[in-house]
Amino acid sequence: MMTFEIKHRDAMGRIGILNINGKKIETPTIMPVVHPNPKKQTVPMDLIKKLADVVITNSYITYKTPNLKEIAEKEGIHKLIGFDKVVVTDSGSFQLGVYGDIDIDPLEIIEFQEKIGVDVGTILDIPTPPDVDREKAEKDLEETINRAKRSMNLKEEKNFKLLLNGTIQGSTYLDLRQKSAREMAKLNFDIYPIGAVVPLMEQYRYKDVVEIIINSKMNLPTNKPVHLFGCGHPMFFALAVALGCDLFDSAAYALYAKDDRYLTERGTLHLSELKDLKTFPCSCPVCSRYTPKELASLDKKDREKLLAEHNLYITFEEISRIKHAIKEGSLWELVEERVRCHPKLLEGYRIVEKYLPYIEKFDPISKKTAFFYSGIESMFRPEVFRHKKRLKRIKYEKVYITNVSNTIQKPYHENLNVLETDVDILIKDPVFGFIPYYIDTVYPLSQNEVPELYEYEKEVNKKFQNEFIQWLKRKIGEDNILDILTYNYYINYFSKKRKIDPDSLRVRKMLQYQYGYDVLEDEDVKVVRSKNTGRLRQVLDKNGDLLFSIRSNDNILIPSEKGAKLLWERIPFPKYRVVVDREVENFAKEGRNVFAKFVIDCDEELRPYEEVLVVNEDDELLAYGTTLLNGIELMEFNYGLAVKVRGGIGKDMKSD
Amino acid sequence: MMTFEIKHRDAMGRIGILNINGKKIETPTIMPVVHPNPKKQTVPMDLIKKLADVVITNSYITYKTPNLKEIAEKEGIHKLIGFDKVVVTDSGSFQLGVYGDIDIDPLEIIEFQEKIGVDVGTILDIPTPPDVDREKAEKDLEETINRAKRSMNLKEEKNFKLLLNGTIQGSTYLDLRQKSAREMAKLNFDIYPIGAVVPLMEQYRYKDVVEIIINSKMNLPTNKPVHLFGCGHPMFFALAVALGCDLFDSAAYALYAKDDRYLTERGTLHLSELKDLKTFPCSCPVCSRYTPKELASLDKKDREKLLAEHNLYITFEEISRIKHAIKEGSLWELVEERVRCHPKLLEGYRIVEKYLPYIEKFDPISKKTAFFYSGIESMFRPEVFRHKKRLKRIKYEKVYITNVSNTIQKPYHENLNVLETDVDILIKDPVFGFIPYYIDTVYPLSQNEVPELYEYEKEVNKKFQNEFIQWLKRKIGEDNILDILTYNYYINYFSKKRKIDPDSLRVRKMLQYQYGYDVLEDEDVKVVRSKNTGRLRQVLDKNGDLLFSIRSNDNILIPSEKGAKLLWERIPFPKYRVVVDREVENFAKEGRNVFAKFVIDCDEELRPYEEVLVVNEDDELLAYGTTLLNGIELMEFNYGLAVKVRGGIGKDMKSD
Ligand SMILES: [Mg+2]
Ligand SMILES: [Mg+2]
Ligand SMILES: [Zn+2]
Ligand SMILES: [Zn+2]
Repeated sequence: MMTFEIKHRDAMGRIGILNINGKKIETPTIMPVVHPNPKKQTVPMDLIKKLADVVITNSYITYKTPNLKEIAEKEGIHKLIGFDKVVVTDSGSFQLGVYGDIDIDPLEIIEFQEKIGVDVGTILDIPTPPDVDREKAEKDLEETINRAKRSMNLKEEKNFKLLLNGTIQGSTYLDLRQKSAREMAKLNFDIYPIGAVVPLMEQYRYKDVVEIIINSKMNLPTNKPVHLFGCGHPMFFALAVALGCDLFDSAAYALYAKDDRYLTERGTLHLSELKDLKTFPCSCPVCSRYTPKELASLDKKDREKLLAEHNLYITFEEISRIKHAIKEGSLWELVEERVRCHPKLLEGYRIVEKYLPYIEKFDPISKKTAFFYSGIESMFRPEVFRHKKRLKRIKYEKVYITNVSNTIQKPYHENLNVLETDVDILIKDPVFGFIPYYIDTVYPLSQNEVPELYEYEKEVNKKFQNEFIQWLKRKIGEDNILDILTYNYYINYFSKKRKIDPDSLRVRKMLQYQYGYDVLEDEDVKVVRSKNTGRLRQVLDKNGDLLFSIRSNDNILIPSEKGAKLLWERIPFPKYRVVVDREVENFAKEGRNVFAKFVIDCDEELRPYEEVLVVNEDDELLAYGTTLLNGIELMEFNYGLAVKVRGGIGKDMKSD
Repeated sequence: MMTFEIKHRDAMGRIGILNINGKKIETPTIMPVVHPNPKKQTVPMDLIKKLADVVITNSYITYKTPNLKEIAEKEGIHKLIGFDKVVVTDSGSFQLGVYGDIDIDPLEIIEFQEKIGVDVGTILDIPTPPDVDREKAEKDLEETINRAKRSMNLKEEKNFKLLLNGTIQGSTYLDLRQKSAREMAKLNFDIYPIGAVVPLMEQYRYKDVVEIIINSKMNLPTNKPVHLFGCGHPMFFALAVALGCDLFDSAAYALYAKDDRYLTERGTLHLSELKDLKTFPCSCPVCSRYTPKELASLDKKDREKLLAEHNLYITFEEISRIKHAIKEGSLWELVEERVRCHPKLLEGYRIVEKYLPYIEKFDPISKKTAFFYSGIESMFRPEVFRHKKRLKRIKYEKVYITNVSNTIQKPYHENLNVLETDVDILIKDPVFGFIPYYIDTVYPLSQNEVPELYEYEKEVNKKFQNEFIQWLKRKIGEDNILDILTYNYYINYFSKKRKIDPDSLRVRKMLQYQYGYDVLEDEDVKVVRSKNTGRLRQVLDKNGDLLFSIRSNDNILIPSEKGAKLLWERIPFPKYRVVVDREVENFAKEGRNVFAKFVIDCDEELRPYEEVLVVNEDDELLAYGTTLLNGIELMEFNYGLAVKVRGGIGKDMKSD
């Protein structure tokens, strides 16, 4: 039995709880590869047990080695390798790839894995190497899909307990990878490894790996863990997690140690290069006890064991760094540092831009930490892509486009003394295209740090700015785009006469930006600013009741019950709705959280962490809260939290 | 007594051996700040002793605390703090800056530091904060220089043993920083701290710190260690070392621990943020023993001690990483990763371009590892700046400028089948401007990795390319810059008739590029390529004697004795000469290394690791070898290796 739920998320990455047969794994994580024969295991199992919640070992080697087979069949794989947490087994497809064929039938290996009590087994897929010709890749894929079906049928017929990996193949043909993912998804496997990427990683072909990951993810169910098979080098973890990979397996920690190779999160060093360093560039229990010279002077066996331990510590260290970044909302920042350690890795990162429309759907709408610009690559971040799209949500009437010197601190409206005006001032920004004066406090528009830019970087958004201005002209007519003179005339003579309350105009625009609808149109509201900080705090209706509170770190408007009702009135179904099963209507009304299982429909354009309306099938408002899942995930997940409810709608909803 | 010699170097950074009173310190390194009162020392001294070769403590606090003063005066500072290696003391100028004035006279504190037996004391300089008005900064600097003179006179008069720090002040006025450095240099201090940068670093004003470092370094003797006073955060170390800083002091490890702040090489975290992480993003002895929750649950005192230990491990870990990068020749690459962790740090790195003419003088001409492009910032690397200048060293006659698809692997001439021609083919390159076909194997022209570039990056070198073409036109006349037609005509009809040996043309151009002189003009040479790799191996003269061997990793031409004589003939004095004192003439002739002490003159344009000629004052050739020091350092260092001699000139030099 397996459940997988998302706890935290950033970019397309997520910290999840993967519960397998009652044993919990916090993803993303590493599955150290252990040898089924304990004697051949370089690193002592107690270290593996301390660091790892899950290991991966080879069922085919176990099957082929008589004494191992005997113990495994009699006492089970967990006993054989001495690890009582989750054990995953590979099926020998790796050996198949290497030796061309192996003498076990695709179903026998499934039976064997069930027999030895693995938690998660793997089908005997055909690992097609990169760049093979088209027919070979297609033929292999056909066979893999066929074996997948037969394995799944066998499992269902014999009511096997083991969970199954449905490996994605298709060589370097992206359309075949997509097809492989679609077919495997139909068979409802438990975990989806992306196979045969090791040769690509060994040749630093990270661009190919990135495209294979994304094209597979786009066709896999979002509620199933994805395992990047054979990826054990920590330098690729951050990018792989940011693209939605949940599991990695590391044979590297032991293999590299065999020939004195020393893993770091930035690359691989060789002990011979480190020998004349006074200390290791690491403080792990191995590196803080031995100097490079001391370690190099040990005999092969001890050296190999200690190097493997260092490699394992470093591998888990990077995973912990990634999890922290996810919680802080700084995973893209960590990725943009890591991808600098090899030009091919940078090249892999730069191709991500091609998939922004898909990736942006998974990126949370707000993060705890500021957007850090780390180089020209940051121009193509999902946060930037999303803002440029949401600029079109604002209802423009009169617009004045201007520049502001980069010495003016953000948020602009706290540092520019602008006369009250109902003209939409669009401040040109080299990274975000335009920062509308009236929403300049909304994440990430004043929660970002950008260095002085090269002139070349200032070119990047010129095309977007021009296209947006053309769009504006078509939308509101050229004469409503004021030049400096008409703008001044307009403020001094026209706006002054009309009593404009800039703050209520501001919150009205902020809601347009947040929801895409003019929620406060013709609403007479009062805006409260905080006494000590002077920052926006609340939006009250004409009777002084709270409609929205304005969250201080990102200036997202959080609805009260009244606010939720207003949103419900002004935003047409199904926008910003999460529709729940009748069964849980009352729980929602009482303000209880909504779990994914009970979500039966939703606005498919929802993004993680947006403020949403919980309704029933008749669009009766039940509650309001924050969605953890986006529009795709809400429909696919059937486990774990979906909407963190802030409040249920009081009984008198009907009589309202 | 103090000596300082360079062992390895990269960028403006250097690994040096600083010998103070017979105690060795390998720089760059950290001087942990320890409290003179052992009871107040958060981290146990045995950990400090294990990690540090040198510590810094405060002489003023010792002076002001009766029982400390007593012990220090009776048994010495080393006994007081329990550290027998190098002890540096601050003079209380930090307290002066904080409290406005302290009750000790600038000379009394010198006397006191001598009395308590410090290895290196510090003058009581005035730490002027940033952005004060001009007169204040000037007045403070005057006083600091005055105190510096009086302190130096006192030391000389009283024949004090202590070495002295001559702190550089001048607030944020770069001209005052230059003046401060010049004045302090005249007084011949032992170590030069750069003062009053802490407030700038606290405000992330890294651009100011970078300019202050460079403007100080440009006016300080290259043979003296530079200490960035108060810089304890590891995230700035790599850039600071690349700009020539040798010493850092860290109070941060203990101060940060006081309020639960957790250092990493990428920034600072707070224990409260880490609490719900399963493991720390670190494997140091503290972080591999405690989970964040366990550490957070300890009482304040234990928690502070353990956090301080983690902070110290991380600090020294980054230093070890930097030293490894220097030895590998990948310090710029490490810097270009680190500066991504904060936009203000990236801004600080981007200002370095302004000082390229100075920085390029210190960058070794060849490195063990390839030039890695990490983003648009890499366009402004010293290696690129240098190549663009050295392009003008080649003697062009007929030139054909062309593009080559970026799928062609480098070195181009091994992957392009080009008909023999004596036309100089210049292949346009988006990073290096032009790669001349005939020197395409010379570092870094085929020892680099560049990802696919954005169109914006491809703009960067257009201006340079045009300017270079204008220069070429002026130099060889427009009609010698062939278009495709004349080029084809030229090769098919003209070159064919003239028996051209491309390889001898190649080595001739390589020597023009390496030395700026046409060393092989009218020389009839034979080029040998390696049998198995087909790569360039040797240049022989007409009698088959070895002139140059061609180093495989960077294709630098290494002269034999005959080659050295040829260089000596063809390159006019003083170019590529290192002139040594008569005293060591015979040592050099016997092939013994040349030490800095005996260098009396040299070609001031020499770069580190160039192949040079060792001569006496009459320009008689004595030996040939590799200079470790550049033209400035050769004159300033009077300790340590200067030229690693490959061979002395046989006795028969004269009769030749
Ligand atoms: Mg559902
Ligand atoms: Mg000298
Ligand atoms: Zn280690
Ligand atoms: Zn630690």
